[in-house]
Amino acid sequence: MADIVPVHDPADPRIADFVRLRDVELRKSLEAEHGLFIAEGEKVIRRAVATGYPVRALLLTAKWLEPMRDLLDAVTAPAYLVADEVMEGITGFTVHRGALASMARKPLPSVPDLLAGLRPAVPGDPAPPPGVPAGLRPGPPPRRVVVLEDLVDHGNVGAIFRCAAALGVDAIVLSPRCADPLYRRAIKVSMGAVFAIPYARMTDWYHGLALLRDACFRTLALTPDQTVTPIDKVALTDRVALLLGSEGDGLSSRWLSEADERVCIPMSRDAMRMGVDSLNVVAAAAIACHGLVR
Amino acid sequence: MADIVPVHDPADPRIADFVRLRDVELRKSLEAEHGLFIAEGEKVIRRAVATGYPVRALLLTAKWLEPMRDLLDAVTAPAYLVADEVMEGITGFTVHRGALASMARKPLPSVPDLLAGLRPAVPGDPAPPPGVPAGLRPGPPPRRVVVLEDLVDHGNVGAIFRCAAALGVDAIVLSPRCADPLYRRAIKVSMGAVFAIPYARMTDWYHGLALLRDACFRTLALTPDQTVTPIDKVALTDRVALLLGSEGDGLSSRWLSEADERVCIPMSRDAMRMGVDSLNVVAAAAIACHGLVR
Repeated sequence: MADIVPVHDPADPRIADFVRLRDVELRKSLEAEHGLFIAEGEKVIRRAVATGYPVRALLLTAKWLEPMRDLLDAVTAPAYLVADEVMEGITGFTVHRGALASMARKPLPSVPDLLAGLRPAVPGDPAPPPGVPAGLRPGPPPRRVVVLEDLVDHGNVGAIFRCAAALGVDAIVLSPRCADPLYRRAIKVSMGAVFAIPYARMTDWYHGLALLRDACFRTLALTPDQTVTPIDKVALTDRVALLLGSEGDGLSSRWLSEADERVCIPMSRDAMRMGVDSLNVVAAAAIACHGLVR
Repeated sequence: MADIVPVHDPADPRIADFVRLRDVELRKSLEAEHGLFIAEGEKVIRRAVATGYPVRALLLTAKWLEPMRDLLDAVTAPAYLVADEVMEGITGFTVHRGALASMARKPLPSVPDLLAGLRPAVPGDPAPPPGVPAGLRPGPPPRRVVVLEDLVDHGNVGAIFRCAAALGVDAIVLSPRCADPLYRRAIKVSMGAVFAIPYARMTDWYHGLALLRDACFRTLALTPDQTVTPIDKVALTDRVALLLGSEGDGLSSRWLSEADERVCIPMSRDAMRMGVDSLNVVAAAAIACHGLVR
């Protein structure tokens, strides 16, 4: 059962996990250093707990004690109880959802492990077979994968996780510089989908696509170029990975040229003449994921 | 040629069009009352001017005088020149794009006129044939139309205009309570697509769909219900209108039951089991528009 601990001073060191949530640079280094992330709001906290992320600490206003009683009974981490203005003093803004949890990250699979079907263990999983890395469990190998190259906006990453999970993409691979899916804003925009779809992060961008080839994935590079194969016309073989590029520049020339095939979303010629010549990355990802799982 | 008029006082009545741009309620009533809207940034201003919206006034910082010289030479409206801090004092925030224009709205076609192919005149259009309402011109009647029911978020409306225009939807119909596509944020998110795709607003929600039937449109209602026809499988006849519902509740039961057919985007059963049971409205609109124009 969680200890309920009233806290009155925003500078109290016990609540250091929760400081200045809008300071992106501070949060990035603090969260990486301590291997933590912040879940915001009752629903998201419950989903993170249900998928086995350990709670380090909770930060709540009084009105959340009753609705979250069962969860407080089930965890051993401390629950810091604060007034609205102390909450604001700690986090740097008005937390509308009134409940925050600092959670410990779980080990991510490597890209080859992810593509072989290994994923983070969830509560209720049986003991792992011999040889499986700690914290992972074997599952069916993914057949439809999305690969994000250098998407730096947390909202876009979260929105693409939501689309990919909802449409039935099996796994996501991130390039080394992609934004963190467990950053607060990414989790929020994803509506918790970051907990539902397994993912891994490449350690090397330059040789990244080799890992997909080694796992027998055919790679499709999405491009605005209207002379290539439309996404709905491409032949879908057993294992297919869709490559999506960054917000401004799209895919790098290296990944574009290394991919097995280039694919596009057909656009209106009239619209292009009137200067509307692109979709935003989330809309493009939604259409392309839908084409990938058809 | 525009008169360049230095202004030093944020309360100067000559710049009243530009006050408190983040005050949504104030702006809604002010813009409706004066029949104006605000275009933000050089690119958007140029696109609005190119599609024939009359400039009422410009508000610029000094660094924009040179890049926009040709535009200033071409318009007769006054250009108010202000320092950065005066700009901020007027508008209520830091205008990163440093140039604003207050533009007069053009008459919108009625829904029946829009569905008959009438659209707002643009510069260079020939004189209208007899009987065409003022400010409109005849064009090819639309065959693929999107109808938005009560989408209240300006960003979502702008994003859907961008998708619809880029993918080749011919026109958009708004329910009476939909957010204004010419609101500053909607224009910005649409990347100017609100100037590229013709639209009209219903005056009556209850009998709104009758206007589509009268124009021989088959109406498809998008719903999360997974037992109905998938959007990619639906038969596309000559004139088809896709109905999209509001952010929270989706389509009203009246429109759902009145539509000719219900359509869905197929979702992953696994994801639904894990609580990821929906797409956001823009992702859903993107996939559905793509299905509509295939």
